[in-house]
Amino acid sequence: MTAMQALRKIAPEPGFVLQEVPVPEIGASDVLIRVEKAGVCGTDQHIYSWDRWAEHRIHPPVTIGHEFMGKVAAIGPAVRSVRVGDRVSAEGHIACGVCLLCRTGEAHICEHVEIIGVDRDGSFADYIAMPEGNVWPLDPGIPDQYAAVFDPLGNAVHTVMAAGVSTKSVAITGVGSIGLMAIPVARAAGAASVFAIDVNPAKLELAARVGADATFSATDPGLVDEILERTNGDGVDVLLEMSGSGSAIDLGLSLVRNGGRAALLGIPSDNVNINLAERIIFKGLTVLGINGRRMFETWYQTQALVKTGRVDLRPIITHILPFRDFDRAFALMRSGEAAKIVLDLKGDLAP
Amino acid sequence: MTAMQALRKIAPEPGFVLQEVPVPEIGASDVLIRVEKAGVCGTDQHIYSWDRWAEHRIHPPVTIGHEFMGKVAAIGPAVRSVRVGDRVSAEGHIACGVCLLCRTGEAHICEHVEIIGVDRDGSFADYIAMPEGNVWPLDPGIPDQYAAVFDPLGNAVHTVMAAGVSTKSVAITGVGSIGLMAIPVARAAGAASVFAIDVNPAKLELAARVGADATFSATDPGLVDEILERTNGDGVDVLLEMSGSGSAIDLGLSLVRNGGRAALLGIPSDNVNINLAERIIFKGLTVLGINGRRMFETWYQTQALVKTGRVDLRPIITHILPFRDFDRAFALMRSGEAAKIVLDLKGDLAP
Amino acid sequence: MTAMQALRKIAPEPGFVLQEVPVPEIGASDVLIRVEKAGVCGTDQHIYSWDRWAEHRIHPPVTIGHEFMGKVAAIGPAVRSVRVGDRVSAEGHIACGVCLLCRTGEAHICEHVEIIGVDRDGSFADYIAMPEGNVWPLDPGIPDQYAAVFDPLGNAVHTVMAAGVSTKSVAITGVGSIGLMAIPVARAAGAASVFAIDVNPAKLELAARVGADATFSATDPGLVDEILERTNGDGVDVLLEMSGSGSAIDLGLSLVRNGGRAALLGIPSDNVNINLAERIIFKGLTVLGINGRRMFETWYQTQALVKTGRVDLRPIITHILPFRDFDRAFALMRSGEAAKIVLDLKGDLAP
Amino acid sequence: MTAMQALRKIAPEPGFVLQEVPVPEIGASDVLIRVEKAGVCGTDQHIYSWDRWAEHRIHPPVTIGHEFMGKVAAIGPAVRSVRVGDRVSAEGHIACGVCLLCRTGEAHICEHVEIIGVDRDGSFADYIAMPEGNVWPLDPGIPDQYAAVFDPLGNAVHTVMAAGVSTKSVAITGVGSIGLMAIPVARAAGAASVFAIDVNPAKLELAARVGADATFSATDPGLVDEILERTNGDGVDVLLEMSGSGSAIDLGLSLVRNGGRAALLGIPSDNVNINLAERIIFKGLTVLGINGRRMFETWYQTQALVKTGRVDLRPIITHILPFRDFDRAFALMRSGEAAKIVLDLKGDLAP
Repeated sequence: MTAMQALRKIAPEPGFVLQEVPVPEIGASDVLIRVEKAGVCGTDQHIYSWDRWAEHRIHPPVTIGHEFMGKVAAIGPAVRSVRVGDRVSAEGHIACGVCLLCRTGEAHICEHVEIIGVDRDGSFADYIAMPEGNVWPLDPGIPDQYAAVFDPLGNAVHTVMAAGVSTKSVAITGVGSIGLMAIPVARAAGAASVFAIDVNPAKLELAARVGADATFSATDPGLVDEILERTNGDGVDVLLEMSGSGSAIDLGLSLVRNGGRAALLGIPSDNVNINLAERIIFKGLTVLGINGRRMFETWYQTQALVKTGRVDLRPIITHILPFRDFDRAFALMRSGEAAKIVLDLKGDLAP
Repeated sequence: MTAMQALRKIAPEPGFVLQEVPVPEIGASDVLIRVEKAGVCGTDQHIYSWDRWAEHRIHPPVTIGHEFMGKVAAIGPAVRSVRVGDRVSAEGHIACGVCLLCRTGEAHICEHVEIIGVDRDGSFADYIAMPEGNVWPLDPGIPDQYAAVFDPLGNAVHTVMAAGVSTKSVAITGVGSIGLMAIPVARAAGAASVFAIDVNPAKLELAARVGADATFSATDPGLVDEILERTNGDGVDVLLEMSGSGSAIDLGLSLVRNGGRAALLGIPSDNVNINLAERIIFKGLTVLGINGRRMFETWYQTQALVKTGRVDLRPIITHILPFRDFDRAFALMRSGEAAKIVLDLKGDLAP
Repeated sequence: MTAMQALRKIAPEPGFVLQEVPVPEIGASDVLIRVEKAGVCGTDQHIYSWDRWAEHRIHPPVTIGHEFMGKVAAIGPAVRSVRVGDRVSAEGHIACGVCLLCRTGEAHICEHVEIIGVDRDGSFADYIAMPEGNVWPLDPGIPDQYAAVFDPLGNAVHTVMAAGVSTKSVAITGVGSIGLMAIPVARAAGAASVFAIDVNPAKLELAARVGADATFSATDPGLVDEILERTNGDGVDVLLEMSGSGSAIDLGLSLVRNGGRAALLGIPSDNVNINLAERIIFKGLTVLGINGRRMFETWYQTQALVKTGRVDLRPIITHILPFRDFDRAFALMRSGEAAKIVLDLKGDLAP
Repeated sequence: MTAMQALRKIAPEPGFVLQEVPVPEIGASDVLIRVEKAGVCGTDQHIYSWDRWAEHRIHPPVTIGHEFMGKVAAIGPAVRSVRVGDRVSAEGHIACGVCLLCRTGEAHICEHVEIIGVDRDGSFADYIAMPEGNVWPLDPGIPDQYAAVFDPLGNAVHTVMAAGVSTKSVAITGVGSIGLMAIPVARAAGAASVFAIDVNPAKLELAARVGADATFSATDPGLVDEILERTNGDGVDVLLEMSGSGSAIDLGLSLVRNGGRAALLGIPSDNVNINLAERIIFKGLTVLGINGRRMFETWYQTQALVKTGRVDLRPIITHILPFRDFDRAFALMRSGEAAKIVLDLKGDLAP
C-alpha cells in the first residue's frame, strides 16, 4: 500500500488528471484516512475551469477535494483520540494553533490557515493525511453521504447559527448547494419562516422541496412588496447571503428590517458598490462576515441536527457517483443539473 | 352597560365570589376591553386556596385573572394605536414607564410593576381596563383560545429564548401547564432534543404527546445515567426549571453540562439549599432568573411561533369551560386532571 | 410669554434667519422647555450651507438645532415624571412608540422617527416642546455645557458601547467632534489603547490631548505598519468609523484584525466601493451600523461616565458663544478652528 | 542538572517539606521551565493546613504551587512555539484537549482538567514541566512579579470580563488578593464605580488604595442604604463575589439591581441557603459561575491591561521573599498581614 489514485491539478490550465501518486506519509500527530466518500464543491469547479481566483491561489501540482469521510488507516505515535478503523470526517482548514485567533477559540479565521485541496493535498484520493486535531470522529447515527458533506453543511450551519434565526423570519439570497442546505438548517434551528431567492427556477423548486416557506425569482418586481407583506411591513429579521452577487447583496440588505442581522457567506469576485448609509448605518444593521466553520462548535451543532433527524439533505444530494466518473460530475455541476454530488471512492480504485 | 359580572376575592379566606360590580372607568390613555376568553393559572389557584403567598400579596377585594383576550369596547381620548372592535390580548404586568428598567427595554422587571388579577382588578370579568401601552393587537392568524393564554405561553417563550436552545439538548424540570408549553416552544425554537422530568405520570404522558423526545419520572434512579448517555456523557446544554421545587432545581442543575445554561422560572416557596461550588461555580454555568415576558419582544416571538403553526397547543388546553363553571375549573385544576383551562366569557353572562 | 426668538431655515437656500415666532403650544403629554444651552452640530452646518442632503431632507420653514439643555417651563396635564423648574436635556429622536422597534427596546431605529431641528422645530430657540417620554432629567452632577451636548456625546457612547472596547485596541477614523468625544469615552469604557486617524493635524493634536495613545495622518504611508506593530501584528480589535469617508472606511476595515468588530457611525454621502471578501467576509468581521443613541440605555451610560468624572470634554468644547453670535459659530465651524461650539441662550434674547 | 529543590506535601498532615527531587522529564510536546518567581495562593494555604478540602483532593506526595514565571530550560522535539531561553508563564489548568469543552473554546472548564500543584507536580520547585499548549510567552513589557501572578490576576480578569463592567457600577464582596486585584482590573475595564465589601479593615484600606470608590464593612448596618443612594436607588449593576461566604453571597445578591449580573468566583465550603425567588428569579438576574481563566482570551486581556499600565498591582504584591523563607510566607498569609506574596526562586537554591 504505497501508491494510490488521486485527482490532481498538475498544470496551470483547465481540467484535472487522475494520477497514481504515493500514499501520504504521516507525522507523529497525524492520521492517515482511507477516503470513502467525498463531496464535490463549487470551489473544485473554479479550480477545474482555472478561473482568475484559481490562477492566483492554486500552485500545481496539488490533489483536489476538501469534503470527505472515511476510515482511519494509520495513526502517528502521538495520536490518542482516534484509532485505526474509526469512521471519521475532518475539518479541512488546518490552523496554526498558536496565533491570537487559534488561542481564543476562533481557529476558523486563523490568519495562517492552510486548506486541503487548495493549499495542500486534498481528499479526491484514496488516502489523505490530516493532523489529529482536525479529525472528527463520526457518530454512528450519521450516514456516510451526510458525513461526506459536513464541510459545506457546516458552512450553512455556521452562517445560520451566527445570524441567530430562532423565531425569526429569514431571507436566503442564493440557493446553490450551501444555500439549499441552509433552508432545512434554518428551519431546524428555529426559524419561523424562510424565504429563498435565486435566479435559477430549478434551484427555487428544490428550495421549496426542502422547506422554504416561499421562493422568489431575484428578478420578480413584486418580491420586495410580497416579503414586506409577509413580515408585517417590517422586512425580514435575518438575511443569509449565499450568492456572492453584488446585486443580490444589495437586494438582500434592502429586505432586512431595521435592527436586523445579515450574515455574508457568498464571496463576491469583485468589489461591491454599497449604499452604506441606507443599507446598514441608518438601519442599525449587524453584518457578519462568515468564513469556514467554527472548530468545533459548528461540528457539534451539525452533528446534533443530522443525528436527531432535524435536517434532511436527501433532496439536495442529487447524485452519488463512482470516483472514476468525476468528469461527469463536473459536467453535471456546470450544467446546473446537480445540486450536491458525492463521489464514492470505496469501490473501484483502491488497492 | 354600567354593571358587569366579576370573579372576586372579597375576604381573606379561601374561595372566590361571582359579583356584580361597576364596569371599570377608563382614563385618557386607557382601553376598555370586553373579555371573551380567559385562562386559569396556578396563581389563581393559590389565591383561591388562600395560601401563605396569597395572604401576603393579595389585598381583597380584587377581581382575579390575568390571562385573556377580547375586543376593544371603548378607548380614552389619547389612545391612537387601537380602535373599538379590535381583537386584542394584553400584557398583564403594568410597568411604571420611567424607571431605569422601563427606560432600557426591561420593563418586564420594573421594580414598581402592578399585576392585573393580583395587585389590581383582573380579567375574570366582562370588562377590564388596560393602559394603551399594554394592549396587544391580535393577528387574525391567532385563534382565540391561544390568544387567551399568551401570558403563560409567553412565560414559556421568554424562558426558552433567554436560555437559547437552537441546536441544543434541553431538560425541563416540571411540566405543569407552562412546562408543557415549553416543550413545543423549545422544539419550534430549534432544540435538538427535549427531555421532560416530573413526578406526575399523566403530565409526562402529555409531555410526550406534545413533543418531548424522552420523559422521566423525577424519582427514576436511572435518570441521570440515561440523560448522560443521550448527551454523549456531557449532560444537557440547557435546563428550563419550571417546578419551583428545591430538589428538582438541584437535580436539574446536576444534569447541565459544564458551560451550560439554566433558566429558572419556577418559584420556590422557601429558601433552597444549593451546593453552589459543584452545581454552578466549577461548572462555569450561566443561571438566568426569568420573570414575566419581555415587553414586547416575547409577544412578537410568541406570535411568530403560533401564527406559523410551529407551536401546537391543542393537547395542552384540555378544557374550555363557560365562565359560570369556574368552580369546576378550579376543582379540575386541584385534581390534576386539567393541564390548561380556558374560560369562555362571551356566551352567558355579558349584558 | 407668547413670542420668542428662533434660528430658522425659512427658504430653500443657504443661511439661517433669527426670527420672532410664537412659543410652541404643548399637548397633554408634552413638556415646554426653556432652552439654556444648545450645541452646534455638523448637521446644522449642512442645513446652513443647503447641500444635497439638506435639499432632500429639510422642508422650510423649520427651527434648527437638536442638542440642548434647559429648564422645564410648563407641562401638559398628563405629564408626571418632570416638574416645572426641572433641569433637563432631551432625546431629539421622537419615535412612534408602537412599531416593532419601539416595542422591543430599539426605538432609536424606529422607522417613523422624527428628528427635532430636521423634521420638526428644534432647539435653537428660547423654547422647545418635547413629548414627556423624550425628556431626560439631569443629574445635579452634570455641568450645563456637557448636558447641552448629550446628543453627540451619546452618539460616541452608543458607538463605543455597541463595539465593546473593554481591554481592546481601538482605531478611530475621523476625529471631528464626535470622533474626539469617542476617545475619552473609549478610554473610560476600558479600551486598552486608542489610535486616532484623520487628515486634519489640528484635530489629531486635540485627539492626543484628550487621550489617544497614538495619532496618525490618514495619508501617512507607514500607518498600517505602525498600527500592526503596536498590536502584535494582528491589527486592532475594534474600529470606530466616524468620518463617513469611503477611503477612511476602507483603510479602517483593513486595520481590523480577523474576528474584530467595526462600528460605523459616519454617514457616507455616496455609495462606497468595498472589497467585501477581503475586508469583511474572510476576516469574519462583525460590522455594526450605528444610528442615534439607545433610548435610554445610552443616556444612562453617558450620565455614568460624565458624573463620575471618567470623561472630560473640556478640551473638546472649544467655544461657548452667546446665541446672537450664531453666524460667528458657523464661520468657526467652517474654518475648522472649532471642535464643539455651545450656544448660550440664557443671557441675551429671552423675554 | 538532574536534582532540584521542591516544596512538597509528602504526607496527609499539615505542613510542607523542602525536598531534593529529580528534575522532571519532558515528553515530545513538553517544555521544561526554570521557575524564577512563584506566587503563593490561598489554595496553597489550604493544602499547608490540610483542611477538609485538601484531604479529599490532594494525594501526597506532590509538589505544590501553581502561579509562576521563569525561563525555558529545555523543549521536547515536537515543540515549535517556544525556544530555550524564552521568558514564560503558563496556564496551570491542563485540559484534555478532546472533550466538547476543549473543542469549543471552553477548555477552562474541561471536565478532565488536571491542575498543577494540586493534581500533579507544581511550581514551587526549581523546574516544572508543562505541555507546550499551556505555555504563555511573556511580552517584554510585563514585569517578572506581575507575570508570576498571571494565574490569580487572570481569575480577576476572567470574572470582571465575564460580568461585563464597562460604564457599570460594581460591588465586590471579599477583597482577598483576587478581590483586591479585581478593583484596578474593573476600573481599567471601564467600571464607572467600584464598591468593596469585606470584614477585614486592613483589606478595605488596601481596596481604597488600589481604586475602590467606596469601601464598606460587611457588618455595617448602613451599607445597603448607602449603596442604594450611590446608585440612584437601583442597586449595583454588577456583583463580583470573591469571598465564598454564604452571608456575603446573600448580601451581594441583595445589592444587585433588577436585570443585573453576578459573577461568582469565591468557593463556598458548604451548601448555601438562598432565597432564589427574591434574590435571582423575580429580579431577572444573570448569575455566572466562574472557574479558572479562559484559555487564552483571559491571558490576552490580562497582558493588555498590564502592558499598557492600566492595572497597577504594586500595593497588592506586599511581599517578595526568597524561596527558603516559605514558612515565613505562610505565616504572613495566616496572620492576614500579607495580601499577595511572591517567592523568588532564582537566587538561592538553584544548582
